[in-house]
Amino acid sequence: MNTPLLDTITSPADLKMLSNVELRQLADELRHETISAVSKTGGHLGAGLGVVELTVALHAVFDTPRDKLIWDVSHQCYPHKILTGRRGQMGGLRMGGGISGFTKRSESAYDPFGAGHAATSISAATGFVAARALGGTPAHGLGDAIAVIGDGSIPAGMAFEGLNHAGDMKKRLFVVLNDNDMSIAPPVGALSGYLSKLYAEAPFQELKSAAKGFASLLPPPLQDGARRAKEMVKSMTVGGTLFEELGFSYVGPIDGHDMEQLLSVLRTVQARADGPVLIHVITKKGKGFAPAEGSPDRGHARGKFDIATGEQQKPSSNAPSYTSVFAKALLAEAKVDSKVVGITAAMPDGTGMDIFARHYPTRMFDVGMAEQHGVTFSAGLAAGGMKPFCAIYSTFLQRGYDQVAHDVAIQSLPVRFAIDRAGLVGADGPTHAGSFDIAFLSNLPNFVVMAAADEAELMHMVATAASINDRPSAFRFPRGEGEGVELPARGEVLEIGKGRIVAQGARVAILSLGTRLAACMKAAENLRAKGITPTIADARFAKPLDRALVLELAAGHEALITIEEGAVGGFGSHVMQLLSDEGVFDAGLKFRAMTLPDEFTAQDSPANMYKAAGLDAAAIEAKVLEVLGIASLRRAKV
Amino acid sequence: MNTPLLDTITSPADLKMLSNVELRQLADELRHETISAVSKTGGHLGAGLGVVELTVALHAVFDTPRDKLIWDVSHQCYPHKILTGRRGQMGGLRMGGGISGFTKRSESAYDPFGAGHAATSISAATGFVAARALGGTPAHGLGDAIAVIGDGSIPAGMAFEGLNHAGDMKKRLFVVLNDNDMSIAPPVGALSGYLSKLYAEAPFQELKSAAKGFASLLPPPLQDGARRAKEMVKSMTVGGTLFEELGFSYVGPIDGHDMEQLLSVLRTVQARADGPVLIHVITKKGKGFAPAEGSPDRGHARGKFDIATGEQQKPSSNAPSYTSVFAKALLAEAKVDSKVVGITAAMPDGTGMDIFARHYPTRMFDVGMAEQHGVTFSAGLAAGGMKPFCAIYSTFLQRGYDQVAHDVAIQSLPVRFAIDRAGLVGADGPTHAGSFDIAFLSNLPNFVVMAAADEAELMHMVATAASINDRPSAFRFPRGEGEGVELPARGEVLEIGKGRIVAQGARVAILSLGTRLAACMKAAENLRAKGITPTIADARFAKPLDRALVLELAAGHEALITIEEGAVGGFGSHVMQLLSDEGVFDAGLKFRAMTLPDEFTAQDSPANMYKAAGLDAAAIEAKVLEVLGIASLRRAKV
Repeated sequence: MNTPLLDTITSPADLKMLSNVELRQLADELRHETISAVSKTGGHLGAGLGVVELTVALHAVFDTPRDKLIWDVSHQCYPHKILTGRRGQMGGLRMGGGISGFTKRSESAYDPFGAGHAATSISAATGFVAARALGGTPAHGLGDAIAVIGDGSIPAGMAFEGLNHAGDMKKRLFVVLNDNDMSIAPPVGALSGYLSKLYAEAPFQELKSAAKGFASLLPPPLQDGARRAKEMVKSMTVGGTLFEELGFSYVGPIDGHDMEQLLSVLRTVQARADGPVLIHVITKKGKGFAPAEGSPDRGHARGKFDIATGEQQKPSSNAPSYTSVFAKALLAEAKVDSKVVGITAAMPDGTGMDIFARHYPTRMFDVGMAEQHGVTFSAGLAAGGMKPFCAIYSTFLQRGYDQVAHDVAIQSLPVRFAIDRAGLVGADGPTHAGSFDIAFLSNLPNFVVMAAADEAELMHMVATAASINDRPSAFRFPRGEGEGVELPARGEVLEIGKGRIVAQGARVAILSLGTRLAACMKAAENLRAKGITPTIADARFAKPLDRALVLELAAGHEALITIEEGAVGGFGSHVMQLLSDEGVFDAGLKFRAMTLPDEFTAQDSPANMYKAAGLDAAAIEAKVLEVLGIASLRRAKV
Repeated sequence: MNTPLLDTITSPADLKMLSNVELRQLADELRHETISAVSKTGGHLGAGLGVVELTVALHAVFDTPRDKLIWDVSHQCYPHKILTGRRGQMGGLRMGGGISGFTKRSESAYDPFGAGHAATSISAATGFVAARALGGTPAHGLGDAIAVIGDGSIPAGMAFEGLNHAGDMKKRLFVVLNDNDMSIAPPVGALSGYLSKLYAEAPFQELKSAAKGFASLLPPPLQDGARRAKEMVKSMTVGGTLFEELGFSYVGPIDGHDMEQLLSVLRTVQARADGPVLIHVITKKGKGFAPAEGSPDRGHARGKFDIATGEQQKPSSNAPSYTSVFAKALLAEAKVDSKVVGITAAMPDGTGMDIFARHYPTRMFDVGMAEQHGVTFSAGLAAGGMKPFCAIYSTFLQRGYDQVAHDVAIQSLPVRFAIDRAGLVGADGPTHAGSFDIAFLSNLPNFVVMAAADEAELMHMVATAASINDRPSAFRFPRGEGEGVELPARGEVLEIGKGRIVAQGARVAILSLGTRLAACMKAAENLRAKGITPTIADARFAKPLDRALVLELAAGHEALITIEEGAVGGFGSHVMQLLSDEGVFDAGLKFRAMTLPDEFTAQDSPANMYKAAGLDAAAIEAKVLEVLGIASLRRAKV
């Protein structure tokens, strides 16, 4: 397929010259271009395909980058990137040195607010609107603010907080609710039912009645007596009272793939709105690409694929994923203990909780994108005598940090946190990196914090967490495949706060927490060739520390190096606190703590990211040589 | 006033024997007892007085501790404590060794879920309800779950997440919305307006129509055809559609001081509810105590006072509070820069933002109890060209941690965080301690993290933060009064990442971050009497570290001790990371990091809490003697 119109577009300003019919054609070309681009790179396909028309219409009607168009989560931004000068860079999407799979302020003036996590867009838009009223003068000017948020994100408490403030502020602001009844997984919660009802009662009402549906656009006589007008409007429109109660004018639902309707509604609100407006747009995730439309996740995230068939290139894999091992281990615990329950926050597939739910449908709770609630709900379950496993990605657990501290740790409730996607995650980049959980969990009193070195260890840690009934526990594991080690039928309960020696050596000891252990072993292999045989230990626990192991390693070696897939403040810091408390540094110890660097590591393959972070086997080897004072020797040899 | 009925109550079970008239009398006695108790101890008075009748009615109707009565925030729990066997302990309320000012699981079976932060109660109740359905068998059994939440807390996103899940779960559960139109400050946001409207339209409708107001209690024929029934109910009731859209049956508004009405409604819902019910109760904060009712904050938090006049014992004070110094410093910046704006999350008085708002009403934003939104709203303001100062207590900033990391730090947006109540806070205890912010901010790339050693330093840090336009910054300061140092008219801009030597000494250096500096000086004074003159330095910055200062202190002294008002993982950990990276420990350095201990320190005076935490002058002195190996000498002398 050719893309004659798209070929003429160098920036959104070019859209202003196009007729409605041409914009329709542009959308078709843009859809094709998006499918074509993602087929070569992989990435989030379904979400972008759902908003192709919306992207074209928003850029045709609004004046970006002066108007601030904010994509919530922003994995749906590929068509937006193609239209905003980044078409030529789509070949490097989500790759090292390439463009991000999300919006990013540093990448383009057309990305006024980056994202990756959900439900931030309304708050950001409200901030822009408040800045505009006070004379804020950012680069590229400051016009309207438009937040595009999905129906999966809007139940997040943060979105509600933003609506509540924006509605109260009463200033002109646009929220486009992109309702595809499908975020990553089918949405849950009462609000989802509410939205479905709005749609069911008025599938694609005509523009005319839609345009009537908000008080601010009514003729002046009706605007007088705001309440009476509002009541009249209510009786004219189908629904949306929930949003109206929060101070928004509600328009919709409208067909997000009907370009004429989209353009008319957006032009009307752009011309006439004088307060906050919520535009309810119904779209279809994966729209226009049959293999995506037909798949259960609507083509949410794809590897490279064949455009004709949709068939994805699957990388060959020798080992099961950590996620699947977690799911298997949890099933084993649930089988013998009916008190074991699972909690996920809109990530049943990603966390393996879908497998648990298939076996124990009444014992799995998907609370939607609501990590705060998910954590305290888990605390309530624990207080109610259950054994909750709360499975949340490291980066998303940040959203529930206060609840982890205030509801779980202070009360010492036995919630088990299964922390997937710990450490660097690859193509999703810094917004999705699990860098901070070791630090923010390990200084919470009462917590047990574990990190699995391989998939068998993960099984042991699931069993261990199941056995801890008097305090909270957490175990972290990375994205991707395990090491291919043999798996037991069921994990063993580990002794709390006991690490293990993996290889006994001399002079230098490397104490690893988590899956850097494999890199440590590889480094040790190379070092042996140089005549150095390090002791390798797996700490297993960041908290409580294996004090005896740490002190023995320190006493028995010239140098001690810790390594972890996390930022400063975590495992290495706790080890140093112990060593300094015990006066081990007084007499001298060559100690080094290898952590993630003090920067947000850009997307790349996980291997490259760990290399850039200085945490791969080569970096470990170099650190050992440096700490033993034979760096120059090494350099001479290499 | 005598309390003949109250004197007969040893547990809530005793309330079951009382008539409605007796329960009314009990409420009057309980109100008197609450006022009397708080007059002797100080504490949160207004909130408890508002729920006296509600407390009596809930305990009379429900079967605690089998039924789980969960007080949101829980500063309104004093009447509840008096009724649940803790009347005799009220004299030790909020004091060292005494009972907590909040509900606490470890304190009583009648406190099934403790609190301190807002909006957790609905999630916890939902957890109990889910546990009940799955056969959870906690101590004291598991019956109903009742969350009592204020209108100030319910706009918090977390409450919305809880309502959304509970409404969808459709299981029997009670949410009592305690609407006093006043949390700590008058509530803000669109939802607040919505609640006021519900009340304005139907002040205290009669029980009969209230009881009709929820579908689940309708006669069976009407329950069939759920949607039709719901529509009918809507036309019968005044409002509450917002809650109904979320799956709750809505009852109210009812008069929370009318014991007959309260008892009737609660008995009805207790007997008949088969799904989630929201009971909207209108109360008056400070009810029944004229000095509280008449004060702007309705007697929110009081010192000891005279029962007759309400006059509070004010402790004599020589120095201004840190909060007031912050307010003064911010005003000075705002005066010369119209881009300076202030953000608070329902704490205008507590953060000093009320003063800012009086001078610059359009430039201060109180977003309500919505820290997540508050942080990202600030990020939007910064992206919009403003200079936002986001003033949130340390412990409440935890609620916005993900937003700090994801929206502010990753994008390196110049939001300035003014972190009040840093460190241990005294009577409010562990839920309000600001223990973790140094750790969770200092490992975020791009951040500048400061801590003020005294109130003049605070002024400098406000000026410094105002001048940082390319990245986020934070400055922390404690609750309470400053040191009484002279204050400049306006703060000076500090050099980023530069500390200062306060006193030059020898052998041992103490590097302090924050207001422990005064204790360090006192310890140094005592040490000089023993012939030891420590060098004392004020780091000012936890990030970026003053590398040169740290390395010089390490090189020039036999021992180096860091001290901070925070948990492990913060300042001391970053100093150790630097020292180990630079190989300083290789040759030996007597290094110690003094931090908050690995426990949640119970409430007491701040001085006693720091003593218990091992961070007072005596502990610093002892640490110096120990690290220099003259501990035995000291013990011999003392």
